[in-house]
Amino acid sequence: MRQPFSYVSVSEAWDKMAKAGVELLESERVSTHEALGRILAENVVSQTRIPRDDITHYDGYAIRSLDTSNAGVNPVLLKVVGKIYPGERARSGIQEGEAFYVATGAPLPDGSDAVLALEMTRPVGNDRIEVRAEVRLGEHVIRAGADVEIGDIVLPKGKTLSSQDIALLALLKIESIEVLKKPVVSILSIGDELVDKMSPHSFLLSRWIEFHGGVPIDLGIARDNINDIRNKLLEALKADVVLTIGACSMGEKDLMADAIKSAAEPRLIFHGVKIKPGRVSGFGMLSGKPIVMLPGLIQSTIVGFHFLVLPLLQSIRGLPLSSAWNTVTAKLAESLDFRKFTPFKKATFVKVEQTSDGLVAHPIRGDSSFFTTVTKANGIVMAQENVTHIEKDEIVVVHMLPN
Amino acid sequence: MRQPFSYVSVSEAWDKMAKAGVELLESERVSTHEALGRILAENVVSQTRIPRDDITHYDGYAIRSLDTSNAGVNPVLLKVVGKIYPGERARSGIQEGEAFYVATGAPLPDGSDAVLALEMTRPVGNDRIEVRAEVRLGEHVIRAGADVEIGDIVLPKGKTLSSQDIALLALLKIESIEVLKKPVVSILSIGDELVDKMSPHSFLLSRWIEFHGGVPIDLGIARDNINDIRNKLLEALKADVVLTIGACSMGEKDLMADAIKSAAEPRLIFHGVKIKPGRVSGFGMLSGKPIVMLPGLIQSTIVGFHFLVLPLLQSIRGLPLSSAWNTVTAKLAESLDFRKFTPFKKATFVKVEQTSDGLVAHPIRGDSSFFTTVTKANGIVMAQENVTHIEKDEIVVVHMLPN
Repeated sequence: MRQPFSYVSVSEAWDKMAKAGVELLESERVSTHEALGRILAENVVSQTRIPRDDITHYDGYAIRSLDTSNAGVNPVLLKVVGKIYPGERARSGIQEGEAFYVATGAPLPDGSDAVLALEMTRPVGNDRIEVRAEVRLGEHVIRAGADVEIGDIVLPKGKTLSSQDIALLALLKIESIEVLKKPVVSILSIGDELVDKMSPHSFLLSRWIEFHGGVPIDLGIARDNINDIRNKLLEALKADVVLTIGACSMGEKDLMADAIKSAAEPRLIFHGVKIKPGRVSGFGMLSGKPIVMLPGLIQSTIVGFHFLVLPLLQSIRGLPLSSAWNTVTAKLAESLDFRKFTPFKKATFVKVEQTSDGLVAHPIRGDSSFFTTVTKANGIVMAQENVTHIEKDEIVVVHMLPN
Repeated sequence: MRQPFSYVSVSEAWDKMAKAGVELLESERVSTHEALGRILAENVVSQTRIPRDDITHYDGYAIRSLDTSNAGVNPVLLKVVGKIYPGERARSGIQEGEAFYVATGAPLPDGSDAVLALEMTRPVGNDRIEVRAEVRLGEHVIRAGADVEIGDIVLPKGKTLSSQDIALLALLKIESIEVLKKPVVSILSIGDELVDKMSPHSFLLSRWIEFHGGVPIDLGIARDNINDIRNKLLEALKADVVLTIGACSMGEKDLMADAIKSAAEPRLIFHGVKIKPGRVSGFGMLSGKPIVMLPGLIQSTIVGFHFLVLPLLQSIRGLPLSSAWNTVTAKLAESLDFRKFTPFKKATFVKVEQTSDGLVAHPIRGDSSFFTTVTKANGIVMAQENVTHIEKDEIVVVHMLPN
């Protein structure tokens, strides 16, 4: 039997991981169209102006507002001298008493400073329109550069690029950008009882690593002997981060910590975290690479991944801890009791649903080994160290899980 | 100039789309590992039990609880007669006064009904352990079938399969499942001014269609003439749903509605929706396929997509309208005014942020043509038809946008 653990608090765990000497990921240049989900390693500064010219926001007539200043009293006739469509330019500027038909998005001719919407006028004869109300300076006009000015930081360093961002970059004709390299994360499952080529746990973590911008490598299964574990760990070190699943509890075959300790320069930095489930999680360094030991019961695996691995993936990217999680606030549908693990953080899997009363979090009960609890849940409520009870209808912070 | 639109309300639009005679998508059988994000077309019923046997939740000793009933007063010694690991079975049942070492997840031997946690006992000599407190019947035992029973519906028809769900299916050794076919959605951009092979709008919608479980096909650009539009539309009809971007306003080159009307059996079902931005959106049927006309200003495109296309994608999958959106509730950071479009629904792009005060929605101001507004926002607040004002600090429902 092993020594009982000396548990560290979750914030101590974060602190120790941050100070363990893990190298920051480098950046690389990628094509804009392949950059979805990547994290910007530079501020993106616009070299162009959008819109390029003053354009019309409506279908209508580009005019000189001055020509209409008395139109509310004495209707005026304007002569339509041309048509301008988006992407075109007027062949000439506008003169007193003139109008150009302009389609939404078209540039205004020089000298025009307002647009009369199509439905606010009527044609008179072949080439004239009647104006019966004053058109204000700038009406329906989008000024050049109103959306993006030259020199604007349109997307800040550290931002995870959304589809919207990529569309903006395409609009700005920015064809490549500097982004952080994707962290490569290897996953090693440990246990004689595992028979499938890829464990359900490893499948799940692989998808979540992808969701969080990493590249998972499944290393399959190591048997419950220290040589097999150590050999597989050495293979795992080609990655930026190593995750192990299982073999980190107090049993006779729980050899993960021993495998790290038996290495050339062992650095088992902590083993045991004040979080429940997930308390037998641990962290070490091997050849400069971080290794997170995750327990094998599925809810423990998930809690360890969510609260230890996600922060680590942020810190090796130089991003703030708080950006690791997507959280929402919700009303708790049932009270929660935690008398047994007072000095621990306590995770409860919940299903968050939108109701007419706002978001409501329904606790999903079930042993920490239960997969069905996990499939029914979409979030985790974390009760803080000294909390022993959370009342029904209290507003709680929910850590949302990816799909 | 065209006729002014006869606007339908958003709920009328949904109703008309639902009744337009769009065919439901069929289902298909896929390998479980390829089913992430797919929608179940059947209830998944378990043929197995998880756990298969009564197992231990802790590392410790499987015992007979009866043997410890007086241990609080008179400590008892139990003889350790074997070890059981996960995936193994005991060679024999347990007898009075005996214990088996069991590692987390291991099955209990026949006759054992409780587990004494490793840290609650101490070895005495080579093969005995001392028990100093009663161990309750069922303590630390997970009963066979406690997670999943034979015949349980583990995943209901209509569920979008998450990574967790796939992991559960793998655990249950279910290798293939019946899911809905992915809706194929073709996108046609219209406009002489478009020069890039793929418009930023089309890029954005393509990614969002993927996010919502569809397969986008970008058909490129049609010029502003009715023959080109019609020819491209015919090509687009190979998809389940056709989206067009642009050419649906009131200008002279806004030929989309004409293109539908000029077809053999024209069914322009509505053109003009009481939603702002996005009011010139429309809907028609061509050869039994639905066509959604989306406006070209980016925020209008997005609002039309979110509030018209997403419901359509649900209805052709036989799913409820309400499942089209991911919504949260948030506190509005600034008041909103909508005096100009009283009878319309009014969309405001917002950035939702988690604060110590819960979720807060910050309105992102900017003309409906602005891309920067879109990149800063992660959600849309929709003010209902008769709402002219929403006060700061009011709780609002936010439609979250994909990344």
